[in-house]
Amino acid sequence: MWKELAGIGRDPVSGGYRRYAWTGADTDCRAWFREQAESRGLAYETDRNGNQWAWLGDPHGTDAVVTGSHLDSVPDGGAFDGPLGVVSSFAAVDELLQRGAVLTRPLAVVNFGDEEGARFGLACVGSRLTAGQLTKDAAYALRDGDGVALPDAMEAAGYDPAAIGPDPERLARIGAFVELHVEQGRALDLTGDPVGIASAIWPHGRWRYDFRGEANHAGTTRLVDRRDPMLSYAETVLAARREAELAGAVATFGKVAVEPNGVNAIPSLVRGWLDSRAADQATLDTVTAAVEAAAREAAARQGVDLAVVRESFTPVVEFAHALRDELAAILGGDRSGGDRSRSDRSRGDRSGGDRSGGGRAVPVLGTGAGHDAGILSASVPTAMLFVRNPTGVSHSPAEFAAEDDCVAGVHALADVLEGLACR
Amino acid sequence: MWKELAGIGRDPVSGGYRRYAWTGADTDCRAWFREQAESRGLAYETDRNGNQWAWLGDPHGTDAVVTGSHLDSVPDGGAFDGPLGVVSSFAAVDELLQRGAVLTRPLAVVNFGDEEGARFGLACVGSRLTAGQLTKDAAYALRDGDGVALPDAMEAAGYDPAAIGPDPERLARIGAFVELHVEQGRALDLTGDPVGIASAIWPHGRWRYDFRGEANHAGTTRLVDRRDPMLSYAETVLAARREAELAGAVATFGKVAVEPNGVNAIPSLVRGWLDSRAADQATLDTVTAAVEAAAREAAARQGVDLAVVRESFTPVVEFAHALRDELAAILGGDRSGGDRSRSDRSRGDRSGGDRSGGGRAVPVLGTGAGHDAGILSASVPTAMLFVRNPTGVSHSPAEFAAEDDCVAGVHALADVLEGLACR
Repeated sequence: MWKELAGIGRDPVSGGYRRYAWTGADTDCRAWFREQAESRGLAYETDRNGNQWAWLGDPHGTDAVVTGSHLDSVPDGGAFDGPLGVVSSFAAVDELLQRGAVLTRPLAVVNFGDEEGARFGLACVGSRLTAGQLTKDAAYALRDGDGVALPDAMEAAGYDPAAIGPDPERLARIGAFVELHVEQGRALDLTGDPVGIASAIWPHGRWRYDFRGEANHAGTTRLVDRRDPMLSYAETVLAARREAELAGAVATFGKVAVEPNGVNAIPSLVRGWLDSRAADQATLDTVTAAVEAAAREAAARQGVDLAVVRESFTPVVEFAHALRDELAAILGGDRSGGDRSRSDRSRGDRSGGDRSGGGRAVPVLGTGAGHDAGILSASVPTAMLFVRNPTGVSHSPAEFAAEDDCVAGVHALADVLEGLACR
Repeated sequence: MWKELAGIGRDPVSGGYRRYAWTGADTDCRAWFREQAESRGLAYETDRNGNQWAWLGDPHGTDAVVTGSHLDSVPDGGAFDGPLGVVSSFAAVDELLQRGAVLTRPLAVVNFGDEEGARFGLACVGSRLTAGQLTKDAAYALRDGDGVALPDAMEAAGYDPAAIGPDPERLARIGAFVELHVEQGRALDLTGDPVGIASAIWPHGRWRYDFRGEANHAGTTRLVDRRDPMLSYAETVLAARREAELAGAVATFGKVAVEPNGVNAIPSLVRGWLDSRAADQATLDTVTAAVEAAAREAAARQGVDLAVVRESFTPVVEFAHALRDELAAILGGDRSGGDRSRSDRSRGDRSGGDRSGGGRAVPVLGTGAGHDAGILSASVPTAMLFVRNPTGVSHSPAEFAAEDDCVAGVHALADVLEGLACR
């Protein structure tokens, strides 16, 4: 299953994945999903927003348990971010069937479309539309880098863009959504656990810093006569790192655009984007205020004008406490299930001294990354499982998870689905 | 004359000029040059490299006195860089004729092609080809941003690219080349003089800094796990400014390219270009070594790899001392010429206390900018005149010179041409 997917949308030079919404690679991934569903005899459907569903049990029943993730990628993304969740969902269904589990609730695997937002610049389009967090008009206004509108891209891929919009009836039939995802940090590596449970998604936002100076000749303009916005930008990059360190948050300038961007020209404009996230709102506010203050001080000193625009912001997402506690109970071994070896498996094959007992709690951790689960959590009881990432690397071809840990993730997800859907 | 040229190649939004080699705007500028030549009864010709010449006296005579500059521009360049020299040359010829000057040497006005290198990335293509500093093969290999080769662009503009190459016979007939140019700094503004004489072009070069780190998720990667090349780049930008200040040189990062350049991605690569110039080689070496050392220190501390490549380098150009002294004598009033008011005019209308005497020397100053005169100086005795730039701004729509100072430049150039060509 993993191998069939591995070749799709992979750039032969970078080794990274380029699976952008409604492109050929995306269509191939969707065909793969449909095959997986139909080969298991699951009822396959796409919803009005192009998300794919594979049902075990009644697709029209209520209180459904849904698991899944996404198959699209960032530019030169890794193999795990998204696909691990979908592949693990099908594998967990296989395991449930092998265990002879008897469902008391409908169960579905889902592939949400356009989670990464690599093509149209907005993340989680499929889940946002479904949850009513993105209007049809706003979706129609999205354009890719070549100027192609989202509805045209959707239509070209064989989907009907006229149908998109909120899908409250579908959401109302979901009793729980559980997304498994490779961790995008090293928290589990540091605690030594193959699998963890998400507590919350950190509040996060993007701020655009426009430093405007004066274009001039780099060879002939005296230093004292310059209004060089690159200097203000550089000071702000370093301030962001410093303030994030002080606060225990993260703050990153990963994107920059310069005008005129000539080797022998002092720039007229340096535009940098700050991405910042913290465990709580107060910490995030402290960091972003301190970075902006440092930027304004540098700009004023250098005769540079500064405008700061908040381009996006997502408040903290606390996953449903009851569901999270239920997962912790299932995975922590406090619950006596049908399969004797389950809790051992879900904790992996590691034999560290202090975790050989059956009752050790699975770690509960926050994350700085956004997910479809974060979108859905406003409408549906939602939880997430993380699989250990030994390097913490993500959004990169070097993204990796060990096979043993992926298997532990499948077992854990199967335990959770059995615990939720077979009561 | 100035007004006819002012509308050509001017972007209506930025107000800057976009006169790139072998484009429609360039063709219009060239047509203007030819009209100026023919309306004065000057013998017009283009040479094998597409440079335009307008001769007063025998185009095939020897020991010619040549003046001129270029008409092309950088992207969104100003009105003066280049055109002021060509317009002033024609105006100085007019003044010579009005004075009734009798030539003893041939005199020419020249427009060198593609001085700024905005389209093909190499500056001074016309003068380099003529002086044998650019081979035909290397010129043929130049491509613009759309992949158009230089010979194809030349042919499309109606010139024969098969003919390009060194032109030693033409150079051998030139006894002196004098280029008038708007100053690209504020030295004359600070000394209070409308016109100055160039001493030398500072040694200058371009270095590409490739900082390679590790692409990763900006939201989930702990600060201590990062190898963020943006941080190393930012420290290097600030180090360049600091070292240039210490040494009395200039050092600028005006161009940067980032991969993957995503808001939520720690970059894998930040590529910055350093432009540095100083009055002498030793100072330049000191600055560039110190910047590289600071960059290496920062990169090592941040786990970032650094490669530094020198992409271009031009040693110091000392203009011919004898010719420079001759210009200083002509403009300084030490020489009794035929026109009584000449030296007064060339010093402009300013009446500052300490410069009312007739014998005050015209300032002699170095410059950080490259020019066709710098290329020709290897083959021909060459000098430059600078016209005051009150703001120092250049390579920008805001580039400016006062009308009085431009007139003073024309008078000074007429004095110089008369002094050289009418002895």
